[in-house]
Amino acid sequence: MIGTLAVIGVGLIGGSFSLALKDAGVVKHVIGAGRGEENLKLAQELGIVDSWTTDLAEAVRDADVVMIAVPMGGYARVMQTIAPALKEGAIVTDGGSTKQHALEMAKAYLPENVHMVAAHPLAGTEKSGAAAAFKDLYQKHLCIVTPEEETSEPAKQVVIDLWQATGAKVLEMPAAEHDVLLASVSHLPHLAAFALVNAVNGQKRDGYDPFAFAAGGFRDFTRIASSSPVMWRDIALANRGAMIAQIDAFKYELDAMKQALLSDDGEELLQQFTSAKEARDAWLASKEEVNKS
Amino acid sequence: MIGTLAVIGVGLIGGSFSLALKDAGVVKHVIGAGRGEENLKLAQELGIVDSWTTDLAEAVRDADVVMIAVPMGGYARVMQTIAPALKEGAIVTDGGSTKQHALEMAKAYLPENVHMVAAHPLAGTEKSGAAAAFKDLYQKHLCIVTPEEETSEPAKQVVIDLWQATGAKVLEMPAAEHDVLLASVSHLPHLAAFALVNAVNGQKRDGYDPFAFAAGGFRDFTRIASSSPVMWRDIALANRGAMIAQIDAFKYELDAMKQALLSDDGEELLQQFTSAKEARDAWLASKEEVNKS
Repeated sequence: MIGTLAVIGVGLIGGSFSLALKDAGVVKHVIGAGRGEENLKLAQELGIVDSWTTDLAEAVRDADVVMIAVPMGGYARVMQTIAPALKEGAIVTDGGSTKQHALEMAKAYLPENVHMVAAHPLAGTEKSGAAAAFKDLYQKHLCIVTPEEETSEPAKQVVIDLWQATGAKVLEMPAAEHDVLLASVSHLPHLAAFALVNAVNGQKRDGYDPFAFAAGGFRDFTRIASSSPVMWRDIALANRGAMIAQIDAFKYELDAMKQALLSDDGEELLQQFTSAKEARDAWLASKEEVNKS
Repeated sequence: MIGTLAVIGVGLIGGSFSLALKDAGVVKHVIGAGRGEENLKLAQELGIVDSWTTDLAEAVRDADVVMIAVPMGGYARVMQTIAPALKEGAIVTDGGSTKQHALEMAKAYLPENVHMVAAHPLAGTEKSGAAAAFKDLYQKHLCIVTPEEETSEPAKQVVIDLWQATGAKVLEMPAAEHDVLLASVSHLPHLAAFALVNAVNGQKRDGYDPFAFAAGGFRDFTRIASSSPVMWRDIALANRGAMIAQIDAFKYELDAMKQALLSDDGEELLQQFTSAKEARDAWLASKEEVNKS
């Protein structure tokens, strides 16, 4: 049970975190903070927060736990602003998509007498804002917590307990490991979807618009290209090193296919496509197993 | 109204073509042909065909129109087999994904006294076999017909009439143009999905399986990587030239993103992501317009 939780950025991630914890009865008071007054008013109307302010320092002054749920590009600004106001022993956590960057920002800006415990819930929808938040968002989803050697054990336990109270399954791993894993299965697909749409868009010409011939496969493949450009710019920059390595790994596979096409090698293409299909089908089957259990 | 239609390959494409034409009352007798007896028996039970045979030559002997609906890799074999049995003036058409290859095979194997009119309906589902066929598959979907200079005008009109009877919207264009357009919006996404799954799969290592951290975005992006490897090998090989050009266009965009990451250029990344999102959102909006009208 914690006394006061400050949620910086009351959108899908921060708002759902608050709703889930209130529903579980593990937090007494939630104060919401951010830049949009309308959104904060709505959050209070919806019972997501008990009070709100646009003054971030004010928001964290009495907070036992501070949840940072803003786009990665906002971390530096948020941490600089709250640093002088945090109370001694406060626990700062976050829900962002790249964990090394979160820890670097905390090291750069937060005082030594508070505890940073970074986390990343693997859940989300296309929607954003307080109106999109709901208490069951994290139910049965993974939440990765990335402690460091110097992380306070009790502070880490508080963050783990909170995430478990939301219904999430908590997993611990080093931040660098998290960033590589997520670069491959999340960040790379987003960049690839953006890149593919741009490649098609570059081929519009007199008389024919390739988009006019796109169907269901294209729609699903590029769904994530309708995601927020600002959010993904922030994530890509915050995870630059891993992203570049993933683009290279992807280009390697594309080149292998191009080579098979150049040499008219149907056996090789079939092997490449089959191994992909088998890996994906096995993944889907394992997910269904998990959902059944 | 045609007398006898032979459907070679009674699966989703061929079976739905037959069901739609029977429903529209524009064909008297449909004979199904293929290699799988069980599938053909089922097709007759389901009312998709009136009779069936595993002897392709036998199937086309009395046919006014022959619909080839087998994977692209089977075209050479099918055309060689039916060529001596086709009656004079018969119209041969197909539903395959690459049109230059279909026309090349027809030129190589079919006699001069029959008419080849190639077509490609832009419709499909993940399912296959006669059991997957349904009469409304082509309703309101595009069907591209790719006549050549020497194509018989009356034969072309028969094929167009048949596709319109299925409910499809028919569009004519040169086969080469079709193949480039489809390479960009259909074939490239499939290859990219296969390649991305292989890139992720190559990164499994002790303790961490990246697939365990994949979520909804990955699922949708890679859905088409669960497609038939044989079918896509055939399409990729049949459309090799256009495919290689598309892989290069895609790699160009990936390289532009990698360059922006290397130079930590958030403005450039934001511009790339925004232009992709805008293009995709505009495409979706235009599709909704079409569906409303």
